[in-house]
Amino acid sequence: MLPASVLELAQQEMLDWNATGMSVMEIGHRSEAFHSITSHAESALRRLLGISENYHVLFLHGPARAHFNTIPLNLLQKGQTADYLISGYWSKKAAEQVVTSHVVADSGSTYSRIPSETNWHLDPQAGYFYYTDNETIEGIEFSGMPENISVPIVSDMTSNLLSRPIDVSRYGLIFAGAQKNIGPSGLVVMIVKKELLKKHQPELAPMMDYRVHADESSLAATPPVWSWYIAGLVFEWLLENGGVEQMQENSLLKSDLLYQLIDKSSLYINDIQPDCRSRMNISFRLQDDSLRAHFLTEARAHRLEALEGHWSTGGLRASLYNAMPTEGVRELCEFMCDFEARL
Amino acid sequence: MLPASVLELAQQEMLDWNATGMSVMEIGHRSEAFHSITSHAESALRRLLGISENYHVLFLHGPARAHFNTIPLNLLQKGQTADYLISGYWSKKAAEQVVTSHVVADSGSTYSRIPSETNWHLDPQAGYFYYTDNETIEGIEFSGMPENISVPIVSDMTSNLLSRPIDVSRYGLIFAGAQKNIGPSGLVVMIVKKELLKKHQPELAPMMDYRVHADESSLAATPPVWSWYIAGLVFEWLLENGGVEQMQENSLLKSDLLYQLIDKSSLYINDIQPDCRSRMNISFRLQDDSLRAHFLTEARAHRLEALEGHWSTGGLRASLYNAMPTEGVRELCEFMCDFEARL
Repeated sequence: MLPASVLELAQQEMLDWNATGMSVMEIGHRSEAFHSITSHAESALRRLLGISENYHVLFLHGPARAHFNTIPLNLLQKGQTADYLISGYWSKKAAEQVVTSHVVADSGSTYSRIPSETNWHLDPQAGYFYYTDNETIEGIEFSGMPENISVPIVSDMTSNLLSRPIDVSRYGLIFAGAQKNIGPSGLVVMIVKKELLKKHQPELAPMMDYRVHADESSLAATPPVWSWYIAGLVFEWLLENGGVEQMQENSLLKSDLLYQLIDKSSLYINDIQPDCRSRMNISFRLQDDSLRAHFLTEARAHRLEALEGHWSTGGLRASLYNAMPTEGVRELCEFMCDFEARL
Repeated sequence: MLPASVLELAQQEMLDWNATGMSVMEIGHRSEAFHSITSHAESALRRLLGISENYHVLFLHGPARAHFNTIPLNLLQKGQTADYLISGYWSKKAAEQVVTSHVVADSGSTYSRIPSETNWHLDPQAGYFYYTDNETIEGIEFSGMPENISVPIVSDMTSNLLSRPIDVSRYGLIFAGAQKNIGPSGLVVMIVKKELLKKHQPELAPMMDYRVHADESSLAATPPVWSWYIAGLVFEWLLENGGVEQMQENSLLKSDLLYQLIDKSSLYINDIQPDCRSRMNISFRLQDDSLRAHFLTEARAHRLEALEGHWSTGGLRASLYNAMPTEGVRELCEFMCDFEARL
């Protein structure tokens, strides 16, 4: 979901961006016009998250999942291990891509909580510590960030970057596929500490080498121009709408509405340990699973879409990304109350 | 450049695609709505190029250049060589990515022709033969296709796919970045013979493995949804406008206008051997190179944009992709005649 005002602006500008007579989709990626788009996007993102000059901000091709493979190739020395915390589907997938991954803790095959930090087995020699800040499929989110990590922290924030303030200076690398809170798919935003890329690494194919992308301001190859442009509009929208602080307030308000309803209900069930519940993805199921198809059909009739759980888990899931207005969540809650009442 | 009617349709549909109430940028990539977009795009492309069911059509993330690295990883057995024909900047870059590449022929450091086929040193044991059908930077294009190749042929058609009919059945793999004749950047279209992906290959990261993308209909990860959608609109536009046969006629007409002007002129010079001249990228320079900046400034004043040559070569270049109307080329020719006359 994208903010309505962003879509409207993109629509207006679509045939003629900034009196160039061209669509953004037609602008050369080495043109002055595109340079203006990218430099505004980067500076807006730096302002939103307080990103210092010690960090590169890269705008890379998707999918985010490809970076499960390229992050270790860029950050690990030969033979070095990396610590992975497994708290759900995506962190597990990421760890599987690393030959030398070391599992710090794994909360189990049905994920319902983040393993307690006192039980993590950290390797002080690891090249980095990796975790997934928000697991979209299960609906599990860190409320803060891991403490007591002595190695660079790498975080997949695909689904919650820009939904709250973060202290970037405590991370080594943050990456996020654009398609949740940033913009259209096809783009990955990466924030990486400059010194992390300075170490000598094995030679990589240029398109897999973050140093190449950093050296060439993410223009080493034709970038995903349209997604980058829309991302810039979203960053401006965020700045005009209270920034990540306001997004955090909104997300707490919206997710609380749903969790309160679920906790009071005798039909809806959320299995996630309360202190790990995601503000972005509220997973739930029905006491009587045979009602699921009926629930989805009725929801659709109320224009409440995309409530299916992930194919790997089934169940139901409401995603409350930044662009989802509180009003939309209230409508969902009303429908859910009404659905239960009519049973 | 994109067809004006495609941009207008995309603009109209931007806030509400097909009465879904959502923008294409917001549609889930596993939804019915997106399935309808992708299946139409694939069948339109199959019709345009006569692609049989023996071939996969993949819609992958960009950049095309990343595939310089992943094509050999997917197609070569361990230790196997691959034949590379070097006819310009891009084929040279591609060959550099392959440890076991074998250069069939190289037309030299200033590229002005395709090496004569009688002088190619082919390796009959090679895993494939690779060439770049159109070298955008120098403006060098194959008029036909290589003959007498006994191994699978791999072709980078980033800049001329869909500009003329091709016999797909004679290729092993064709790939193209979308940003020339297909749609917005961020997307790579790949046409690959199914049997080529069947051989046992070393284990690859899933996002680099074309078999994974083929098995999952290019939805193994969130795809570049918007670029894929626009590509589908461009395919429909091509079908409605005479297909690739008409694009070939148009491209010959447009490029002839410019080449004739250049050949008659005593100011403009094109260095490419006539039978290798590109229909897509007309490279030229001025007899007196010190006039280049003046030429570009005046051109811009006539709203004739993007005439700079590539940064690596300098000079000038006019790109005449499918969406460039003949009228636009006539305006460029008029300006160029007039510029020369006024000297």
